[in-house]
Amino acid sequence: MTEHLNAALKYSQDHSQENLGKMKEIIAIPSVSTDPERKEDIQNAAKWLEKELYDLGMTRVEIFPTPRHPIVYGENLKAGEDKPTALIYGHYDVQPEDPIGEWNTDPFTPTEAGENLFARGSSDMKGQVVACFSAVEAIMQTGDLPINIKFLIEGEEEIGGSYLEGFIKENKDLLACDFFLNPDTGMLGPDLPTITYALRGIAYFELRVQGPKQDLHSGTYGGVIHNPAQVMTDLLSGLHDDQGRVTLKGFYDKVIPLEAEERDELSRLPMVDKFYSDQAGVPKLWGEEGYTAVERAGARPTLEINGLYSGFIGEGQKTVLPAYAMAKVSTRLVADQDPAEVYEQFKSYLVENAPDTVTWQLDKLAGDFPSQSDRKSKWIEAYVNAAEAAWGVRPMFKRTGGSVPVVVHIQQALGVDSINIGFGLPSDNIHGPNEKIHLPTFYKGIEALIHFFFNL
Amino acid sequence: MTEHLNAALKYSQDHSQENLGKMKEIIAIPSVSTDPERKEDIQNAAKWLEKELYDLGMTRVEIFPTPRHPIVYGENLKAGEDKPTALIYGHYDVQPEDPIGEWNTDPFTPTEAGENLFARGSSDMKGQVVACFSAVEAIMQTGDLPINIKFLIEGEEEIGGSYLEGFIKENKDLLACDFFLNPDTGMLGPDLPTITYALRGIAYFELRVQGPKQDLHSGTYGGVIHNPAQVMTDLLSGLHDDQGRVTLKGFYDKVIPLEAEERDELSRLPMVDKFYSDQAGVPKLWGEEGYTAVERAGARPTLEINGLYSGFIGEGQKTVLPAYAMAKVSTRLVADQDPAEVYEQFKSYLVENAPDTVTWQLDKLAGDFPSQSDRKSKWIEAYVNAAEAAWGVRPMFKRTGGSVPVVVHIQQALGVDSINIGFGLPSDNIHGPNEKIHLPTFYKGIEALIHFFFNL
Repeated sequence: MTEHLNAALKYSQDHSQENLGKMKEIIAIPSVSTDPERKEDIQNAAKWLEKELYDLGMTRVEIFPTPRHPIVYGENLKAGEDKPTALIYGHYDVQPEDPIGEWNTDPFTPTEAGENLFARGSSDMKGQVVACFSAVEAIMQTGDLPINIKFLIEGEEEIGGSYLEGFIKENKDLLACDFFLNPDTGMLGPDLPTITYALRGIAYFELRVQGPKQDLHSGTYGGVIHNPAQVMTDLLSGLHDDQGRVTLKGFYDKVIPLEAEERDELSRLPMVDKFYSDQAGVPKLWGEEGYTAVERAGARPTLEINGLYSGFIGEGQKTVLPAYAMAKVSTRLVADQDPAEVYEQFKSYLVENAPDTVTWQLDKLAGDFPSQSDRKSKWIEAYVNAAEAAWGVRPMFKRTGGSVPVVVHIQQALGVDSINIGFGLPSDNIHGPNEKIHLPTFYKGIEALIHFFFNL
Repeated sequence: MTEHLNAALKYSQDHSQENLGKMKEIIAIPSVSTDPERKEDIQNAAKWLEKELYDLGMTRVEIFPTPRHPIVYGENLKAGEDKPTALIYGHYDVQPEDPIGEWNTDPFTPTEAGENLFARGSSDMKGQVVACFSAVEAIMQTGDLPINIKFLIEGEEEIGGSYLEGFIKENKDLLACDFFLNPDTGMLGPDLPTITYALRGIAYFELRVQGPKQDLHSGTYGGVIHNPAQVMTDLLSGLHDDQGRVTLKGFYDKVIPLEAEERDELSRLPMVDKFYSDQAGVPKLWGEEGYTAVERAGARPTLEINGLYSGFIGEGQKTVLPAYAMAKVSTRLVADQDPAEVYEQFKSYLVENAPDTVTWQLDKLAGDFPSQSDRKSKWIEAYVNAAEAAWGVRPMFKRTGGSVPVVVHIQQALGVDSINIGFGLPSDNIHGPNEKIHLPTFYKGIEALIHFFFNL
């Protein structure tokens, strides 16, 4: 086994240029999922993956069409039923290249400069997919796969309303696995391998407060008719107490409390207060009392106003008493909160607090459960050791404030934990101009994956 | 004197068709002040007035150009210095006729139907100007004017940023008078002659609360960065207490309290609660405790949110933590409040209450003083008796919640009270499609003005 491991590591080092070449090939296909004029590029990217998976040695490869962009599947289960099965996730679609004028190089012509390769999709996440392929290739070219592998690569990650959730629900047998490997969550720095073990869920609402049947003159009606914008500010203002806590009744009931050991682990993270205030450009941070910034952003549920509208918002003045006010409000949830319960809590709050001088309506726009993986599972343990072998340091354990729906959908449909890792860096400018991938980190990532597959 | 009065009344009755004809002539000129393509119509309307004022017997008539639309002036001071001088206001511009599709007749072809004449500008306020002309004509065709008269007729009432204020300040001698007659405030019903003796002032602000330097991802930063929309709702929500009072320190200090006798007078008005809630289409009224709806809307200062914006307000969801929030906020002021002092009060409130996690900026967009006339002055008394003679009932005394800048500018520049009357009705659809004037009320208005001029 150690021999095979060493051979595989050597193979990957000897073939670094080939691995880089593969990455450049797939990057050069501008598979922007939101652009209807690039439907053919999307198809070409899927076909490229299909061919690669065959060449890699997958024994079954299939392109599953969806009403929009296809899902590419590949598997090699030769290791046998007594070996664990990894379901490896990827997406082959990329963000649009806008604003094109701010790129220093052509976004779909991969360009090396120093230690980086610049191109759209390099870090998010074609480079991550190719790292997985390269690790599997290195192992298979030097011996047998020690585990069973399934690849699930979608083309709709960067677009709203993916068909992947339905596909997962309908293909539980096909996708059955022991754990889900999601290499799309990156690392905190080039020397900081990172495991993201918790993702926040979300419950997103639109609240409308209706006052008069139409806009009124604020001179004639001001002070007589309850201004719906005023009611809205009263209602929204009441959603936090003066300790920064959300006031919805029952909101914290199902929140798993942070234990001392986890807080210690999180305190190792380099995101100190100054990191957040510098990034955001604010004079001072804010948040729930009793928690650090890292804990607030990842381990505690929060409530944000995402949008607010009422009346006249153009230049100058208009003396209008608005007919209605609208707010977009979202809560970020942590395990074991339930977005449907939060909706009921918000509704109860409005029933209790909205005055009878107006009417209101609360709509659910989105709801996703939070996800949390067991930090002590054997799969995580295997990656901890793999990362330590590749980088020489114990990886960071991180929670993330955002939501990654696929992780939740897999967890709910297949009942397995996720290992959220990846080799993208915070400085990679994903979604922005001049996206890049750090090549030394990419190569170390391949080695970490090789170690990981042998550690299982 | 009684003989002359009776002769003038008879003259006006005998010439009702001619008076109606005059009104139709000026109405047919589409003097929409906001429409650049109707500059010639504006000029034609001013010339029509110039000719009419000459024909009427004014001894000096002059068109004063402004950078936009001209001001028409006419005077007859033959009554002599021992007689009072009235400055009679009017505007010859009209609102645009949009939405044109909702008119039942051509907006600039005056059309009689039943007791009404339909046309843009009929009620607001060409009909009111012609009523004044007709009353003066009736008196002058049957004898000498018992008072001195000055007409001040502008073409920029329905457009922002009128040049009239500057003209008034620069022509104090020309406009010197004993009182200002403003026939642009209408009556509450066809049998309810009305004197508007108080107009609210205004102080209009734009508040901007700046959080992060750019929009952030609400998953990554939610709960760590103080959301400027949340700060905005906290700040705005704090502007009213739970008795519906404005919380700005010193806000009520200069407010002239309502006395029992004035409250009795206001309680005669037909605007009961149901009037306001029906007009607005709300389930229930709201306002400062301890005051009726009429008092709240006219005699008490108020604060309204006129506009509110932050973050994402389109369809669907976007998980943004907004960079800033903006609100348009205005206060309606009553005598003797000062808009500049209210600005300072608002600023002090923000200094005291805005958290140091954000920055903010407060801009003044408009400020006009409130205006209040002495309900017991001899000018008002003269109109009370005149209205009683014409309609057989004592007129209503009314405050209005809106602001009429010209009244304030005249009061400040010339130091005289205003008599705010008029013969428009609430059902006249001014500013909307199918504007009309009620002809029996128009004719009675001419008679009331004849009585008024003799009563002085």
